Amino acid sequence: MAESKPAGGLLWQKEGVAVDARIQAFLAGEDVVLDRQLLAYDIRASRAHAEGLCRVGILTADELQALCAELDRLSEEVADGRFVLDERFEDGHSAIEARLIEVLGDTGRKIHTGRSRNDQVLVASRLWLRDQLATLGAQCAAVASVALRRAGEEMQLPLPGYTHLQRAMVSSAGMWWAGWAESFIDDAELAAASARWLDANPLGSASGFGVNLPLDRDFTTERLGFSRLQVSATYAQLSRGKFELQALSALSQALLDLRRLAWDLSLFLSAEYGFCRLPNQYTTGSSLMPNKRNPDLVELLRASYGVVAGARGEIESLLSLPSGYHRDLQFSKAPLLRAFGHGLSALDLLPALLDALQWQPEAMRAAIDEGMYATDRAMQLARDGVPFREAYQRAAKPVEGESRSPEGSLAERSSPGGAACPLLDRLQARLAALG
Amino acid sequence: MAESKPAGGLLWQKEGVAVDARIQAFLAGEDVVLDRQLLAYDIRASRAHAEGLCRVGILTADELQALCAELDRLSEEVADGRFVLDERFEDGHSAIEARLIEVLGDTGRKIHTGRSRNDQVLVASRLWLRDQLATLGAQCAAVASVALRRAGEEMQLPLPGYTHLQRAMVSSAGMWWAGWAESFIDDAELAAASARWLDANPLGSASGFGVNLPLDRDFTTERLGFSRLQVSATYAQLSRGKFELQALSALSQALLDLRRLAWDLSLFLSAEYGFCRLPNQYTTGSSLMPNKRNPDLVELLRASYGVVAGARGEIESLLSLPSGYHRDLQFSKAPLLRAFGHGLSALDLLPALLDALQWQPEAMRAAIDEGMYATDRAMQLARDGVPFREAYQRAAKPVEGESRSPEGSLAERSSPGGAACPLLDRLQARLAALG
Amino acid sequence: MAESKPAGGLLWQKEGVAVDARIQAFLAGEDVVLDRQLLAYDIRASRAHAEGLCRVGILTADELQALCAELDRLSEEVADGRFVLDERFEDGHSAIEARLIEVLGDTGRKIHTGRSRNDQVLVASRLWLRDQLATLGAQCAAVASVALRRAGEEMQLPLPGYTHLQRAMVSSAGMWWAGWAESFIDDAELAAASARWLDANPLGSASGFGVNLPLDRDFTTERLGFSRLQVSATYAQLSRGKFELQALSALSQALLDLRRLAWDLSLFLSAEYGFCRLPNQYTTGSSLMPNKRNPDLVELLRASYGVVAGARGEIESLLSLPSGYHRDLQFSKAPLLRAFGHGLSALDLLPALLDALQWQPEAMRAAIDEGMYATDRAMQLARDGVPFREAYQRAAKPVEGESRSPEGSLAERSSPGGAACPLLDRLQARLAALG
Amino acid sequence: MAESKPAGGLLWQKEGVAVDARIQAFLAGEDVVLDRQLLAYDIRASRAHAEGLCRVGILTADELQALCAELDRLSEEVADGRFVLDERFEDGHSAIEARLIEVLGDTGRKIHTGRSRNDQVLVASRLWLRDQLATLGAQCAAVASVALRRAGEEMQLPLPGYTHLQRAMVSSAGMWWAGWAESFIDDAELAAASARWLDANPLGSASGFGVNLPLDRDFTTERLGFSRLQVSATYAQLSRGKFELQALSALSQALLDLRRLAWDLSLFLSAEYGFCRLPNQYTTGSSLMPNKRNPDLVELLRASYGVVAGARGEIESLLSLPSGYHRDLQFSKAPLLRAFGHGLSALDLLPALLDALQWQPEAMRAAIDEGMYATDRAMQLARDGVPFREAYQRAAKPVEGESRSPEGSLAERSSPGGAACPLLDRLQARLAALG
Repeated sequence: MAESKPAGGLLWQKEGVAVDARIQAFLAGEDVVLDRQLLAYDIRASRAHAEGLCRVGILTADELQALCAELDRLSEEVADGRFVLDERFEDGHSAIEARLIEVLGDTGRKIHTGRSRNDQVLVASRLWLRDQLATLGAQCAAVASVALRRAGEEMQLPLPGYTHLQRAMVSSAGMWWAGWAESFIDDAELAAASARWLDANPLGSASGFGVNLPLDRDFTTERLGFSRLQVSATYAQLSRGKFELQALSALSQALLDLRRLAWDLSLFLSAEYGFCRLPNQYTTGSSLMPNKRNPDLVELLRASYGVVAGARGEIESLLSLPSGYHRDLQFSKAPLLRAFGHGLSALDLLPALLDALQWQPEAMRAAIDEGMYATDRAMQLARDGVPFREAYQRAAKPVEGESRSPEGSLAERSSPGGAACPLLDRLQARLAALG
Repeated sequence: MAESKPAGGLLWQKEGVAVDARIQAFLAGEDVVLDRQLLAYDIRASRAHAEGLCRVGILTADELQALCAELDRLSEEVADGRFVLDERFEDGHSAIEARLIEVLGDTGRKIHTGRSRNDQVLVASRLWLRDQLATLGAQCAAVASVALRRAGEEMQLPLPGYTHLQRAMVSSAGMWWAGWAESFIDDAELAAASARWLDANPLGSASGFGVNLPLDRDFTTERLGFSRLQVSATYAQLSRGKFELQALSALSQALLDLRRLAWDLSLFLSAEYGFCRLPNQYTTGSSLMPNKRNPDLVELLRASYGVVAGARGEIESLLSLPSGYHRDLQFSKAPLLRAFGHGLSALDLLPALLDALQWQPEAMRAAIDEGMYATDRAMQLARDGVPFREAYQRAAKPVEGESRSPEGSLAERSSPGGAACPLLDRLQARLAALG
Repeated sequence: MAESKPAGGLLWQKEGVAVDARIQAFLAGEDVVLDRQLLAYDIRASRAHAEGLCRVGILTADELQALCAELDRLSEEVADGRFVLDERFEDGHSAIEARLIEVLGDTGRKIHTGRSRNDQVLVASRLWLRDQLATLGAQCAAVASVALRRAGEEMQLPLPGYTHLQRAMVSSAGMWWAGWAESFIDDAELAAASARWLDANPLGSASGFGVNLPLDRDFTTERLGFSRLQVSATYAQLSRGKFELQALSALSQALLDLRRLAWDLSLFLSAEYGFCRLPNQYTTGSSLMPNKRNPDLVELLRASYGVVAGARGEIESLLSLPSGYHRDLQFSKAPLLRAFGHGLSALDLLPALLDALQWQPEAMRAAIDEGMYATDRAMQLARDGVPFREAYQRAAKPVEGESRSPEGSLAERSSPGGAACPLLDRLQARLAALG
Repeated sequence: MAESKPAGGLLWQKEGVAVDARIQAFLAGEDVVLDRQLLAYDIRASRAHAEGLCRVGILTADELQALCAELDRLSEEVADGRFVLDERFEDGHSAIEARLIEVLGDTGRKIHTGRSRNDQVLVASRLWLRDQLATLGAQCAAVASVALRRAGEEMQLPLPGYTHLQRAMVSSAGMWWAGWAESFIDDAELAAASARWLDANPLGSASGFGVNLPLDRDFTTERLGFSRLQVSATYAQLSRGKFELQALSALSQALLDLRRLAWDLSLFLSAEYGFCRLPNQYTTGSSLMPNKRNPDLVELLRASYGVVAGARGEIESLLSLPSGYHRDLQFSKAPLLRAFGHGLSALDLLPALLDALQWQPEAMRAAIDEGMYATDRAMQLARDGVPFREAYQRAAKPVEGESRSPEGSLAERSSPGGAACPLLDRLQARLAALG
């Protein structure tokens, strides 16, 4: 059916074979829309591939120059919106080739020498993933930076510490911030470690078996900034989905921390806790109840983990397959883009929100009750030589005449990581090292 | 920021509170796009709500008539594409109210009496789910119908039976079809049972606590065709996500069967098996390898389970919450729509594909080797009085002079469900009972 | 290696083939331990199978009597602990056959005629599942029963109602209970519907292809109390894992409600809310902090959902397979038993815990602030003819001289499901109908 | 109830509070059994903690010596089985303290000074995880080592290459092995990177808020071989579950590759492919069908991924919590131990199995058909100057008189990673660098 046939044609189409529109629609799925995000990377990799083809004699210098010029032109058109990938094309890969053929004729017909669309999707998504992980790392560092600054400023501001949602010991806003700072530093490091792990060039693996051309893969590796060649052609295919899963694991760590941070905020913002406030732009109203100001944003940030977890599950579910390419793998694209798109836009809002958080010191202090000094007392007895297990029994009740304050408790919290010995410089050093 | 403010306005917006475009974008997400699928149901429920309001004296008969007329008009505009829900509106719920106010003034301002947007999303998605489950049931029945017809036609067509992908016993194409027929009949029944389970009217629960108005909820229950009232207002909120999960479980059962069926086809279509063929419109080519015809559609059908499983995980992940509405629940909408949208479009292709499947009897017969009669032989010995455990030992090798054929094996497969006693009438009866 | 060889022997073992202990250990896994739970069902199904074999002439009446007697004896030994399934056996199925052969010789060697171990595991786990779902239904009904009783008693006891964890409207303890009552009634109904759905007899499907014996499968269906025959032999195999998933979906619904209920309790038990207390046996202490009483049980109940969700994911992950039996399916057993074992033991504690819950009415009342009457006010204005959207604006602030109380708010909550019209009789009727 | 009270007592138990056996059983779960795996690590960390306490003056040198001696003794008893953790104890942590108190009296009562059981479980499981990840890395390296050796030996042994399970191009056994080699090298590197990432000392964080004792945490960090201090006490708690998830991600990567490798083997071992054989100890028989030899082990290896995926989902499901310890987190222990226990025992079997794999060269060659040379032909035309897109069209059919062989195809596969340029030395170098 004519209307379903991409303008760029189906590269593999044979004459006389009917194409069913409904089937074609299912096969294509949302590919052209998804490929918009990958197109710039695909063009960049196509350029490197062309340069490599010239080095092995498939393209003349003139042909290469023409291809590069046209690819650069297309790249600009993509960047400024003049070229939009749409249903005229089967996918982004075909669109590039179609354009080159349309403009350059036989020279364009040479671009696909020695590569497959599998090559293209692998290298484009690898480059894209590397960028996404870099953004993830930068965002985590930005969160850690705000948290660390406030940790330094608010180390002595008393905040009740809870376990089991029960009042446990005196803590401080600064100790709370320090926890999130270290957490997001770890997340940034995991993003970096994951990026290094998958920083291998798959271009030149063709359909997973190589080709009878001595492609200069070390050249394209260097040209595309990869730190190593993904040597095995069959492994290039096996890494589809596999690398995505580790990237999503790194992303999900940050979203997991966000989920728990949002939980804290959700409680702290309730009337029952009342420990903090957010500026009005972070809250919304109710269509029915005139009295409400709801922390919807905080809740959606909390909920964002699910988008990543769902995407991970979706990709995992695909990967029960023998080796070699299978079309099932195409379905790894949508969840991957969805998870990073959503996850990074959630994290992007976090530094400003944390910056805007206003503590309510009186409410925080009011929630610190006498029982929360019991551990301090037990430890004091222990320091005085009472075996801890006995001190624990004796400390349950206040000693007559003893006077304790949240500030006093914090001032004596001398174990490293406690308010009297927070070691923030170590966190600062790790944050700085993230670059 | 002006450009982010919905034309319909934010119902709950208070004066003097700045709205941040980036935050607003994150809050809105893809809601207006998603709500397009629910809008017709929301209008229908709004109409029932208006009728109910008239019954308790909030609306006069004239006001009701005006509201119904306008809702009907909007419904038609939605149906024929004149009205498109877009970013002018915060969501579909607000869009309906905005339209009624715009056209009817104070009468429109009465429509939201005694209900909340939570009410609206609950009732609209409940009605939508009921329809989706009905479609799911019909699609499963359609698959079962093709399978059952071919089971009857091809019961004696020999097909090797495998366990562990090892040749096991002679089976038949008809036995294979009968398995899928019964499977999809069960899926259709589960869809129906799930639809019955969630067929309860949440409208009138307001924000989860009811209102000080004696709403006629039994009337709206009957008007919207629900089989029962969801009594408790707090439970109406608790059922958000919960009901969706069972609907997705029902959907995932059909997709699970599809996954396993597609696995069979994927193997049968390989050169190594060669047991069947599909018309060309079901296959695609390779951009690199001129020799290929790939069963991409079969692979994408197989992969479709992951979309549903991922969606389920995404929703599950949200539901670790205290009772009462939380904005987290908004994120249940996208995966729900995605899963049904994708899942039903996959199932929709199946009857025609199964109908088009062409067996290759010679290849099937060629894959039946001598060892596959050993169980027949053991059972014969057992029938002759040899204790089975001994018969099992003796049957490993063919008896001299014995002559066995696939057809002969099938003709003796007399256990109910076997080729000689397939009991297809029972399956036919269950299929017919599905209505 | 001799020590790894089950005393019962490996039924399928051929002479001269070495068995590697480490491999054998991996293959066996924890099967014999897991099979302990299924053994009684396997024996029961074996007895029905034997009776069926007698009906088709494989066993004489005497042989049948001997087999039944021995199976009954074994059944008793299993029940009272004299027989324990352990590593002497490959699995429970082999253990039964080994015992019959040991005691009855050739008669025992006939028991496996026309069936496979696949048959055995299918029918035993089907019977087990049916019982588990019945228990699940009964437990949900028991929870609903406590909740419904307390709903009736405490309908007018004010409890703040929250959305977004923000104070929303006056609610009541009774409305809260009613929500859980209706929720667990639905869970009980889903358990029953799921049990009906999978109540089909797989016995007699052999290895998935039937056998050349006219087994009387209708007889065993009736004998084992199944409501229908699972007709297709290939479908019997396809339903392995599939039926388990729906059973786990039903279980997970109850655990999901428990998760949300436990969240409520976790908050209500905090010092900040202080809405309820639990007797001391429901709390534990801290090894370090002498002041703590922690609601550990509530937290573990909340966490129990994960055990079921994980099990579901584990089984789902297996089911990307062609049709026919694959050993992968063996791994569906452990998560299934784990999920039901854990889930039912969690639910089992719930009725007593709910019964013991002590409300703290003063704390509940103290958390109801003025803003929570705004919706009541808006609705009153609307009843007086003010268009709701305008009433909503005017109601944000209290009217001078107006006096409102939580009890007054509840007394006017007249929408069905509200405190003034709770319709608990409808829930009672559904609960009673569960039998 | 006396029988449920651990002999070691409940450290936190207050007098006069009844303990309910059923509740206590649910609370304890399988903790003592699980803790058996962690006990040696807990003892080791307790020793470091004692040394640290001595450095800050809580213990005298004599007391330290006595504690260390007793801890060493206990460690030996655990190692040789004289001490078994059982239901006499609430958990492993309490067992250690109980022993020290029993033997050393007041000196033993000092061991818990400045630490909590949260400290203990964090540090013990961190040490355990580090070891598990080291084992994982070593196992992956062992697999890669076999694969790499066979890649070198069998690079020119023709094997059909498939995409979409359709015959695609000539590949080789060596290319197939090289893919798995590189894959498992990556897995080993991810295990190492993950171990580095989580290599931070949580000991001394107490209940998540530090204590009023200047614990020498840098000393215990060094003593336990951690590469850094986990600075923030609140983060120590937040990392529970979080670190486990990344460890499971690393594990799941190896199991994912195993799943896909097992899929290849499952197909290759079928009669339809017939590409390889495994020695008899890797296969099992059927209880019904005398003719079968089933590759059960391969199937269970394939299925093992689900155990890890399920465990990951189980832990993920727990982590929707505010910061601070919650008892929910206890449920992260069972899935973690289960996943590593199962996963590592599966990987452990793999090197020997791969070593034992016997190719069937004739079957492999027989499955290489003429169409599989089409890409070679197209590339040759391209090398001769024909634009590839035209060459692709012309290459679909063989040229008259052309003679091609699998060996010839491999000999010309000159793209890096292809059979003529496998670059195995690079993989060897990475494998060697893993240490």
